[in-house]
Amino acid sequence: MSARLVVVGGDAAGMSAASQARRRKGPDDLSIAVFEKSGWVSYSACGEPYYVSGDVPELNQLIARTPAQFEAQAIGVNLHHEVVEIDTSAQTVTAITPDGNRVEPYDQLVYATGAQPVLPPIEGISLKGVFPLKSLDDASAINAAVPSAKTAVVIGGGYIGLELAEAFYQRGLDTTLITSGQEIMNRSLDPDMGALITNGVTDRGVKVITGLRVRHLTGDSHVTGVATDEGIIDADIVGLGLGSQPVAALAQTSGIELGSTGAVSVDDHQRTSVDGVWSAGDCAEAFHRITGQPANVHLGTVANKQGRVAGINLGGDDATFPGILGTAITKFLDLEIARTGVTEFEAIAAGLDYVTAITGSTTTAGYWPEASPMTLKVLAEKGTGRLLGAQIVGGRSAGKRIDTLAAGIWNNMDGVSFSMMDLSYAPPFSGVWDPVLVAARRAAEKA
Amino acid sequence: MSARLVVVGGDAAGMSAASQARRRKGPDDLSIAVFEKSGWVSYSACGEPYYVSGDVPELNQLIARTPAQFEAQAIGVNLHHEVVEIDTSAQTVTAITPDGNRVEPYDQLVYATGAQPVLPPIEGISLKGVFPLKSLDDASAINAAVPSAKTAVVIGGGYIGLELAEAFYQRGLDTTLITSGQEIMNRSLDPDMGALITNGVTDRGVKVITGLRVRHLTGDSHVTGVATDEGIIDADIVGLGLGSQPVAALAQTSGIELGSTGAVSVDDHQRTSVDGVWSAGDCAEAFHRITGQPANVHLGTVANKQGRVAGINLGGDDATFPGILGTAITKFLDLEIARTGVTEFEAIAAGLDYVTAITGSTTTAGYWPEASPMTLKVLAEKGTGRLLGAQIVGGRSAGKRIDTLAAGIWNNMDGVSFSMMDLSYAPPFSGVWDPVLVAARRAAEKA
Repeated sequence: MSARLVVVGGDAAGMSAASQARRRKGPDDLSIAVFEKSGWVSYSACGEPYYVSGDVPELNQLIARTPAQFEAQAIGVNLHHEVVEIDTSAQTVTAITPDGNRVEPYDQLVYATGAQPVLPPIEGISLKGVFPLKSLDDASAINAAVPSAKTAVVIGGGYIGLELAEAFYQRGLDTTLITSGQEIMNRSLDPDMGALITNGVTDRGVKVITGLRVRHLTGDSHVTGVATDEGIIDADIVGLGLGSQPVAALAQTSGIELGSTGAVSVDDHQRTSVDGVWSAGDCAEAFHRITGQPANVHLGTVANKQGRVAGINLGGDDATFPGILGTAITKFLDLEIARTGVTEFEAIAAGLDYVTAITGSTTTAGYWPEASPMTLKVLAEKGTGRLLGAQIVGGRSAGKRIDTLAAGIWNNMDGVSFSMMDLSYAPPFSGVWDPVLVAARRAAEKA
Repeated sequence: MSARLVVVGGDAAGMSAASQARRRKGPDDLSIAVFEKSGWVSYSACGEPYYVSGDVPELNQLIARTPAQFEAQAIGVNLHHEVVEIDTSAQTVTAITPDGNRVEPYDQLVYATGAQPVLPPIEGISLKGVFPLKSLDDASAINAAVPSAKTAVVIGGGYIGLELAEAFYQRGLDTTLITSGQEIMNRSLDPDMGALITNGVTDRGVKVITGLRVRHLTGDSHVTGVATDEGIIDADIVGLGLGSQPVAALAQTSGIELGSTGAVSVDDHQRTSVDGVWSAGDCAEAFHRITGQPANVHLGTVANKQGRVAGINLGGDDATFPGILGTAITKFLDLEIARTGVTEFEAIAAGLDYVTAITGSTTTAGYWPEASPMTLKVLAEKGTGRLLGAQIVGGRSAGKRIDTLAAGIWNNMDGVSFSMMDLSYAPPFSGVWDPVLVAARRAAEKA
């Protein structure tokens, strides 16, 4: 009889694990059953704002692989199967399904339940026209609601908040973004860089109100406005971008240890505290290479890599997850925003002694017609000049430069050594000293 | 009395050296005199094709810093001073100047004469309408000649050839690019990648003839055509992009050792074989980190870095030049082309045992409306999977990704480790696995 693998959660992490395990073990050695609560597997949550904006015309463009494609690999996909219990002694999962409860035995289990949006316990949160954005169903519902709306308010200035504001704006709605933070992207970039985003978004046509708290939402059955400390803002549609949290309660009640972040604790092979139970993706912790602490980020990049590592190990090979830097990127129209490593806030929390330098530059040679402003902030370790973190806000082609800085940070480079790397240059692409080189050097020289 | 620094050659390397030296030593400690053959200092040779194309409207936009700006730093700029002799025993240079010969003593000398275009010894090379492109004067002359031309032929398929072809095409000329190589960029990318460029340039409207030798140029006083092995191609203007060579003869006759590449041999502090004589930039060698051999590349990036190193050392501090990877980038309209590390040809020449992988991908998430094709070739060391080189041909935002690969190669990463780096992702910027990660992994998995 073949061993039985059950995967709880069928998005990036779970399906990567299933695929990698299947590559290494055929159906005779390993049966694979995926239990997915929703009606979708293997989709791009990161693409959802761009379905709302109209950039991506069809929702199914966001599907990376269909259930049929997985079934063809002998990976059983069970949609609308919500796992509600994991018995780690009996090695069974219990799922609520359209046909009643189903109990499934397993030898190996991948816990990949992902994350869910944070919904504040305020009055009116359940009114029609109020939407989080996490699932494809959310994206579909928002898209359907936009044509009958004239005004939109987005609550929250993180990635989803910013991307939703862009989407509403592109769809022609009179859009306001409210954040309780000092600046947009308050948790991801330092306030000095966040101010550039706040200004950039404002300049591009979305009203931004920072440092404002929401009291409740107004309306009878459908939302009509957002009541704040400074009055009511009209809203036919409200988007919620208040962050997300790992779906870890089921793990906890099943005796699978959570870490300090509230997500499932895993080792570098994606093993949990329970033998035969693995975890990966938004619901799991990830080692942060700069803070040296566990972190919990909700990004497809990490979910795919962790799922891959779990699947390789499940398949009998050996892989380790080397940790994260917290690298991320987004945009608002033509304004690109990226970060890697630690911010000042994170550096302080981790007890790191650091210096910072902010460098103004342009995305291309200054004389190139498409040159646009670009600001880089780099953190370096005091004493050594080792690069600890970087943040970028700028025009087109600014953002992806964060990868070069991430590679330097990943390799523990100091900023002066980094500045002498042989990077590419031609006037349509950068100045002769790419701005990342200059920014890294300036930070290190202050160290 | 202050020590005397003479800088021979006033572009990137020479002026960087002068500036860095001046930052560390004031005029009372060090006098600095720059002798420059032409009428220009500190200009962007890399920007010249874009003046010809019309992207950069004014020639003086290509001037990074004016003589007056240098003079304000007490750096003496002597234009139209061609140094014709360096007496390393007497420590003097002799220059031909508009006012006759001038002999100048020095304590320290920076030899930064740059490179000059290769001009083939064929009939008609001196006809009117035939242009190399190296100096600002060249760019100015070509620009002036374009309005009266209808047809252009570019001879040579390297960076300058390609960029000149783009420029002529953008100016509305009926443009043909001829290269004796198998594909465009024959010396910079492998033929399998070069074929993508040849096809891309052809598709975009420039006629390309590969593997064709030029016999001579036709015309009485002004060029009328290019005579090849396969007949005459009409040309009102001919651009020469046949590479460049270091200006090293003066060094050689002065007893300054040249290396195997024909450029000035330097150590990692930019010292030549002669005490008190330094060299940097296109005329000097650079250590190639992958081949382990000296190389001679003619790029502003290397010139600036080497000049900086020479200047820091001249100023009494200590800096080393860490070598190059041969990283470079260019474009043809929206087609981006980049490389780093070694090609197959270079790997073979260096005796490296390697594998290759070619990965097709898109510049953004496949479903993003601006997604365009992008091909990556990665070389990895057999046995270890260590990254040795990478080449990219693709649409907008493809090219600058070479920097991330360069950073990995610089740090001696193997392709599998590289593939697990925490790079940025959002659908407008890449797939969830950035193509560089996938390409590096595939190469290493074959190693």
